[in-house]
Amino acid sequence: MTSAKYDVLAIGNAIFDVLVQTDDAFLAAHQMNKGGMALIDEARAKAIYDAMGPATEMSGGSAANTVVGLASLGASVAYVGKVKDDQIGALYTHDIRSAGVSYLTKPAAAGPATGCSYILVTPDGERTMNTYLGAAQDLTPEDIDPAAIAASQYVYLEGYLWDPASAKEAFIKASKIAHDAGRKVALTLSDSFCVGRYRSEFLDLMRNGTVDIIFANESELSSLYETEDFDAALGQLRNDTRLGIVTRSEKGCVVASSDGVVAVPAHKIEKLVDTTGAGDLFAAGFLFGLVRNAGYENAGKLGALAAAEVIQHIGARPQVSLKDLAQKHGLPV
Amino acid sequence: MTSAKYDVLAIGNAIFDVLVQTDDAFLAAHQMNKGGMALIDEARAKAIYDAMGPATEMSGGSAANTVVGLASLGASVAYVGKVKDDQIGALYTHDIRSAGVSYLTKPAAAGPATGCSYILVTPDGERTMNTYLGAAQDLTPEDIDPAAIAASQYVYLEGYLWDPASAKEAFIKASKIAHDAGRKVALTLSDSFCVGRYRSEFLDLMRNGTVDIIFANESELSSLYETEDFDAALGQLRNDTRLGIVTRSEKGCVVASSDGVVAVPAHKIEKLVDTTGAGDLFAAGFLFGLVRNAGYENAGKLGALAAAEVIQHIGARPQVSLKDLAQKHGLPV
Repeated sequence: MTSAKYDVLAIGNAIFDVLVQTDDAFLAAHQMNKGGMALIDEARAKAIYDAMGPATEMSGGSAANTVVGLASLGASVAYVGKVKDDQIGALYTHDIRSAGVSYLTKPAAAGPATGCSYILVTPDGERTMNTYLGAAQDLTPEDIDPAAIAASQYVYLEGYLWDPASAKEAFIKASKIAHDAGRKVALTLSDSFCVGRYRSEFLDLMRNGTVDIIFANESELSSLYETEDFDAALGQLRNDTRLGIVTRSEKGCVVASSDGVVAVPAHKIEKLVDTTGAGDLFAAGFLFGLVRNAGYENAGKLGALAAAEVIQHIGARPQVSLKDLAQKHGLPV
Repeated sequence: MTSAKYDVLAIGNAIFDVLVQTDDAFLAAHQMNKGGMALIDEARAKAIYDAMGPATEMSGGSAANTVVGLASLGASVAYVGKVKDDQIGALYTHDIRSAGVSYLTKPAAAGPATGCSYILVTPDGERTMNTYLGAAQDLTPEDIDPAAIAASQYVYLEGYLWDPASAKEAFIKASKIAHDAGRKVALTLSDSFCVGRYRSEFLDLMRNGTVDIIFANESELSSLYETEDFDAALGQLRNDTRLGIVTRSEKGCVVASSDGVVAVPAHKIEKLVDTTGAGDLFAAGFLFGLVRNAGYENAGKLGALAAAEVIQHIGARPQVSLKDLAQKHGLPV
């Protein structure tokens, strides 16, 4: 294993976020599952957008948000995800590169537009996502650069990649290259409905060693093992993966490994505004802790701090330097 | 004079805002006039954007922000301004229509892209704008619908319209139609550098009765009359226009009319985040007061309240219902 050029390389669906503050009645009127991520086609995207109020736009995408958070903490990171060569793709490319991320993927010259997620934020701060994958569907194994993967200490993959058919192959290819180079592969389960769609495949990935580290929240864990019994599910997770990190919203997180189980409390917040990106930024902080060999407890604290920053404003990308924030809170950077 | 279909119809440069939080060093490195609006060409737009950090996007445009504020207060409003038929133009069109504004202008099928302003927000909350006019340059007198103008109680025009050559003709055409229908025409001076470019023309518009009402801030007033003596400038303004409203940031505003001069204090805020849209939303509140015949003092209070809302978050459009906010503060709606 040679030294790593990148601390973390992430692969995900490159999605532009269109965020709007709304009420629960809007979700009900449009048959949306509150708190979830629904895949939508172009016709449904148009219908939702036409019914939505004025929006704020910002680059998003789960794994992309995570590497942007890692860059803000001071890590060296790269991103693989597909946009189209259109106006929104140009905004997306600017935002991720100017955040300090090496963005490696060539935009699509033809085919669907850059993917968008119509994100409804309710007064309780919960976000409900409606994602039109667009060009993100066209990520293929050819977009995986073996040298970049082999040069990354961690490869981070999002479960959402199971939705576009060819991205799955890119995922498997990346994992093989990473393991051949002695690297570690992490997977976030992304969303409980996503887990519902791909439960047995995700379990296979864990059990056959395609992934080494699992990030999940409580409802994803519950969906994965089809049980409401948290401790039972956690026990199964410990059997199935070397390292599992389960986030529990205001109850903090639990880190399960061969060393045992460590619980880390959530970071206090003043006001919950928008949960978009909470899990993504938690993963950023935790992975940063792993990269810096800071121990699971510090990794959990870094994750909690990054998540706390992002849920106190609209949008899934940090608005301050997470490095400065971590230093202010006495955490290792 | 028949009854009005629209309380206010506004004409302005339709501009998409690309907002970024930065520091004073960035402004200095790029030779920007802090607090001003500079017109930039495509090459300079690219250079600034390439150097900028990750951004948040939102629809903007001075007069457009004002009518969105008026709609949020409950007024019936229309907007005239040119975007291109491109992705950003579609976002712009969605945002203004979903805010409750009748948006009347056909997008350009060819020519430059939808206009964008690269807005740098410094830690003191001040905003510095760099505007690429793009498709907004192609607003022409043909975009002015005489029936819509004649059916509007107030026509509101932005001084920025003096920048694109053919928009000026549209402005004059609209004023003539409005006056023939017995309506009033208001003008915002927009920006002290803009006043510097068109001082004698703006004074002519006031003196020859093309405009009836003037909105300005202190530095625009100072630039208009080329004096730092506020009282002297205000005296000249009273000679030159029937109704002049001068905003003075935290010192509130002064309303000068044939009835005398009324001073209205600013609305208290918790934290200044971003002054983008402060003048636009002040004008929204004040015009709303005029529309409702609420008197100059209430109009000033409505303006101060709307401005206070918009400067406490990123972006130039209100994030809450201004009608609810005004009711909460006991102001007429």
